[in-house]
Amino acid sequence: MKKYSYLLLSFLFMVCNVYSNNDKTSVSSPNGQIKVEFNIDKEGKAFYNVSHKNVPVIGNSYISFKFNDAKELKENLSVVDTKKNTINESWERIWGPTLKVVNNCNMLEIQLQEKSKLKRRFNVIFKVYDDGLGFRYQFPEQKNLNKVFIADEQTEFHLSGDYTCWWNPGDWDSDEHLFSKTKFSEIDGTPYLKNQLTHSYIPDVMAVNTPLTMKTKDGIYLSFHEANLTNYASMTLKCDTKNLKMTSALVAWEDGTKVKTQTPFETPWRTIQIAESAAGLIESNLIENLNEKCKIENTDWIHPQKYIGLWWAMHVGQYDWEMDKNNHGTTTQRSKSYIDFAAKHDIESVLIEGWNECNPKWMVGERKCQFDWITSYPDFDFPEVVRYAKEKGVKIIGQHETNGLAGKYMNEMEGAYNFMNELGIKTVKSGYVGAKVPANNYQQGQYMIEHYRAAIEKAAEHKIQLFVHEAIKPTGLCRTYPNLLAEEAARGQEFNAWGTPGNNPSHVVILPFTRMLAGSMDFTPGIFDIKLKYRENNQVPSTLAQQLALYVVFYSPVQMACDLPENYENNPAFQFIRDVPVEWDNSKVINAEIGEYLTIARKEKDTDNWALGSITNEEKRNFEVPLTFLNEGVQYQAFIYADGENAHWDKNPLDYSIRNKYVTSKSVLKIKLAEGGGQAIFFKAIE
Amino acid sequence: MKKYSYLLLSFLFMVCNVYSNNDKTSVSSPNGQIKVEFNIDKEGKAFYNVSHKNVPVIGNSYISFKFNDAKELKENLSVVDTKKNTINESWERIWGPTLKVVNNCNMLEIQLQEKSKLKRRFNVIFKVYDDGLGFRYQFPEQKNLNKVFIADEQTEFHLSGDYTCWWNPGDWDSDEHLFSKTKFSEIDGTPYLKNQLTHSYIPDVMAVNTPLTMKTKDGIYLSFHEANLTNYASMTLKCDTKNLKMTSALVAWEDGTKVKTQTPFETPWRTIQIAESAAGLIESNLIENLNEKCKIENTDWIHPQKYIGLWWAMHVGQYDWEMDKNNHGTTTQRSKSYIDFAAKHDIESVLIEGWNECNPKWMVGERKCQFDWITSYPDFDFPEVVRYAKEKGVKIIGQHETNGLAGKYMNEMEGAYNFMNELGIKTVKSGYVGAKVPANNYQQGQYMIEHYRAAIEKAAEHKIQLFVHEAIKPTGLCRTYPNLLAEEAARGQEFNAWGTPGNNPSHVVILPFTRMLAGSMDFTPGIFDIKLKYRENNQVPSTLAQQLALYVVFYSPVQMACDLPENYENNPAFQFIRDVPVEWDNSKVINAEIGEYLTIARKEKDTDNWALGSITNEEKRNFEVPLTFLNEGVQYQAFIYADGENAHWDKNPLDYSIRNKYVTSKSVLKIKLAEGGGQAIFFKAIE
Repeated sequence: MKKYSYLLLSFLFMVCNVYSNNDKTSVSSPNGQIKVEFNIDKEGKAFYNVSHKNVPVIGNSYISFKFNDAKELKENLSVVDTKKNTINESWERIWGPTLKVVNNCNMLEIQLQEKSKLKRRFNVIFKVYDDGLGFRYQFPEQKNLNKVFIADEQTEFHLSGDYTCWWNPGDWDSDEHLFSKTKFSEIDGTPYLKNQLTHSYIPDVMAVNTPLTMKTKDGIYLSFHEANLTNYASMTLKCDTKNLKMTSALVAWEDGTKVKTQTPFETPWRTIQIAESAAGLIESNLIENLNEKCKIENTDWIHPQKYIGLWWAMHVGQYDWEMDKNNHGTTTQRSKSYIDFAAKHDIESVLIEGWNECNPKWMVGERKCQFDWITSYPDFDFPEVVRYAKEKGVKIIGQHETNGLAGKYMNEMEGAYNFMNELGIKTVKSGYVGAKVPANNYQQGQYMIEHYRAAIEKAAEHKIQLFVHEAIKPTGLCRTYPNLLAEEAARGQEFNAWGTPGNNPSHVVILPFTRMLAGSMDFTPGIFDIKLKYRENNQVPSTLAQQLALYVVFYSPVQMACDLPENYENNPAFQFIRDVPVEWDNSKVINAEIGEYLTIARKEKDTDNWALGSITNEEKRNFEVPLTFLNEGVQYQAFIYADGENAHWDKNPLDYSIRNKYVTSKSVLKIKLAEGGGQAIFFKAIE
Repeated sequence: MKKYSYLLLSFLFMVCNVYSNNDKTSVSSPNGQIKVEFNIDKEGKAFYNVSHKNVPVIGNSYISFKFNDAKELKENLSVVDTKKNTINESWERIWGPTLKVVNNCNMLEIQLQEKSKLKRRFNVIFKVYDDGLGFRYQFPEQKNLNKVFIADEQTEFHLSGDYTCWWNPGDWDSDEHLFSKTKFSEIDGTPYLKNQLTHSYIPDVMAVNTPLTMKTKDGIYLSFHEANLTNYASMTLKCDTKNLKMTSALVAWEDGTKVKTQTPFETPWRTIQIAESAAGLIESNLIENLNEKCKIENTDWIHPQKYIGLWWAMHVGQYDWEMDKNNHGTTTQRSKSYIDFAAKHDIESVLIEGWNECNPKWMVGERKCQFDWITSYPDFDFPEVVRYAKEKGVKIIGQHETNGLAGKYMNEMEGAYNFMNELGIKTVKSGYVGAKVPANNYQQGQYMIEHYRAAIEKAAEHKIQLFVHEAIKPTGLCRTYPNLLAEEAARGQEFNAWGTPGNNPSHVVILPFTRMLAGSMDFTPGIFDIKLKYRENNQVPSTLAQQLALYVVFYSPVQMACDLPENYENNPAFQFIRDVPVEWDNSKVINAEIGEYLTIARKEKDTDNWALGSITNEEKRNFEVPLTFLNEGVQYQAFIYADGENAHWDKNPLDYSIRNKYVTSKSVLKIKLAEGGGQAIFFKAIE
């Protein structure tokens, strides 16, 4: 039956291809390999398809909109006009895995209008790059479409085969799931209903969240997502596993409406990354290219940073978040000891969590504790901590835990940022643990998306850099607001502290090909106490060497050294965490396979130093890596942090071997990864 | 011929043994294994012999004194009286390889008097320990012996065999030679006359300096030295290679007199360590037990320390010592950068060398530069450096380079120490590079010995800790004056920077069995840039891992991390230098063979942590080391800094492998040492 539907699809594709072979409504990537064709069928329905090297990737896929209070915008459409354009420019990131980004695409704008009496208009804009495409809908101001209540956006993605997918469920309240790997036809989120997340809402087990990544039987890699999610609802993808078709399913408001807006407006870009290798997905800049230019004029105050924090200690139960429990973590005294550790080890910043009244008590129970983002717990003297940090040359990262109280935070944000400004704090981690209030607003819904955006803009006004936990998935906004350093929006290290289950060894080799394609993640690597002395039944599913490798493999402008200081003391492997840069100007993916392994080399910004990270899933591997990426003519001292001979993520996770070698760009390194293992190398250029 | 003389000796020994078998003039060690017999022959000459487990070690050996202006004290002696006593006590060191020292010996005092008309008297005191013996001469106040000008002390050590010896020549001005290993009968210092030392005076190629270490064909280890060298001249040993006999040969004043003194006086102890293993020599406390108790009442201000310093940079030629050369090392600015490095890496102290006017210019050329120990070079602001260090929590080690001007220093010492006190400096490194002035006073002669002692006592008055370069060999005085932390008095690391030749790979496995038996040495380990980028034709004859191991193998209460800070940055092996304790309370020699290998484990003072160092000469080795020394019932995280698979002191000295292992006292470690290699382990006790 599956085979039959695939054949049918191919046949239809060919037929339509002939029918719609019109230069004016098709567009190819600059290298000609990706081609998008748009057309209108006999009933006046609009559809598009996508091919790669003349092989269909997305078959004919229809687009339409349903409204609460108006007729569906679906049929009787005609192409009024089309426009084409080419963009070929480059722009500079303030921070990122590479600083120079080429933005080279061909554009096609299709202007559509209903032939019926309403004559409603909208445009479909395609931008086709060598690494994929994006398209969005523009709704101009018009008489018969003013206030708009979208009941459903129905953008189809008709797969040309039963691709292998890495997916997690269409949860409206969380992205913190483990990924599943199945054929598309086998997608079924039912098992996720029994998940262990505190907050989760999966209204349709046949929907998945994005980025959704696939591999075709021809070895083509695809990832579906959206870019520039602004004033809209997040898109999940409802899967028709029989017909190999996905349809956009937007997250709703309480009343079931998906998006409340008015013309003129435009939707986010619906994006499809297309690459001939898994590495190509990672090296793609599609998502950021589809966002707007930086809106912050002077960005001098923005820069990447490494940090430690009073955080993991609470996750593993060494201390409590709350002051009225036995052992409050974030006291003045303990903050100072963390500051001392940071100063000693050249870690730029210290995160202070659980510092303010009620934090995060509101999350559980009756939610009666009164709090703001100004009043400290009595045992935490914020000005004194900031003074001490300054004396030691350490920066403090403040924390705004909203406990989901977005409405309250919205009202008090100005004062909260002012307070940070007064203290001289330039970076804030915000958090949204718990059900969102006003109630029945989902994390991925339009209300929260507008909230997150307001917080970013308000932070920018206050010259505050943000990284957000329990955040909406990134959609490339960091290009426009580079003060948005990172987001969580996925299942991070914290689940290894208390998750039942925690993460699994393949999680870290799926994240870079899925969630991390969307933008930087505050995963918080660096656990040395893999077996977690404070948590008998949990462990990190990784070797210690892999924890180091994550600092290179996972790009983020904020990188936490997340373990307890006592677990770093005396351990020579900590030297890598001290050394690994957090600002890069260039990156190369050396090898990659989704869910299996990933090796990336990155060049430190403004120096000749490089670092390399290599990780694997539960299988051990051997690689030969020619160091051709190193600067030519430069000699390097390579400090190699490898899995030990008997290393194994579960049986012997702490077995490592640190070595020391002189290399050049002509050298070839043999890299051996244990089960669940990794290797991290710091290449120090010798003057 | 050699065989014949040995047989003859054995025969004589047996004869005499019978003749002198007198309980009153013999004494044994507490365990009965070492026996000393004293007697008078028919001519009234005094002699002694020593046996170990009834095997003769030292055959009949005569004692006598020659005077400039009086008849030799040699014949017609009679035993007037004898006294016996037993000491069984223990005492506590302030610092040392072990803190508790057992002092358990049997004493025998022989009161001698000439039968002739002068009736001069002197006593010989023997103290016989399980680990060897010491004997000294006491001269009571007496009519016919008042002012005393010793022309020669002639204490014989008549070897009972042609033992294998590790020796260096009887140099009156220096101990900075490489050791020779020969049969006793082959000792000949002629090759040393062509040595490369700036200052050296070898008046007799058949004499050797002490400690002089030997191994008998039965595998008994001996080391000859002296203890409590006070108001006397240093003893060299003149070797009669034909008759397998050594005779004390004291270092002379300019006029040929050896010692100028007056009754009552006593000589230093002549010491013979005796052990059944090479390890036994190292574990012996004989030398300190033969010194006087601590004379410093309050010793709170004395404590071991690790330090870095502006020192190696001058040795390798990165900077100059002197300000009027191109690139003065010890400027205010550079001192601050070293202070920053020390603060960052928890190194307690920073040594400042070449800070004062003329330092060390006076050493060479016309010696016309005027200097004191108060006036800084204009580019070195001492109060500012001290202020900055204090701010950073770092201590400064001052330096008094005398350039051999002992007379001048003696006069100005008070002011120089006052200046250190004013600055708040509590540790001073002193140096005596160059020929000694007043001229023709040798480093090992009585004048200098009194000078060094005066400096130690004056420092103690000022609560200043000293470590002395170009010093007289230690003789256990640190028991009496624990502010004498260490001395050089041997060929240290510095020769690897510019020596032609430098040291050789076996040097470090000879030092602990020779020079270091006498007391702690400021060897300055820790070179990472083994091949010395600033010195093309020199290198350190060691692997990097061996450099780490030296911090454990070489006991000293001052341990320098002597390489350039830039060579430590980023190198994970530096973690060992940060971690290795400098205060211990217990030590165990795991295995040892002179000139071949040495493995020592030491317990950190007041913690359960241990460290282990293992080193080898140019031969690679494998050991199995049961960790029975570790505290029972404690789990340890072992950070293992080992030679890499292809490590070799010359071919691949930087190849190391750092590993990480959980162990207990029941674990057994396999230790693999490369040629010229080593292994260092820090055992961190887990709470």
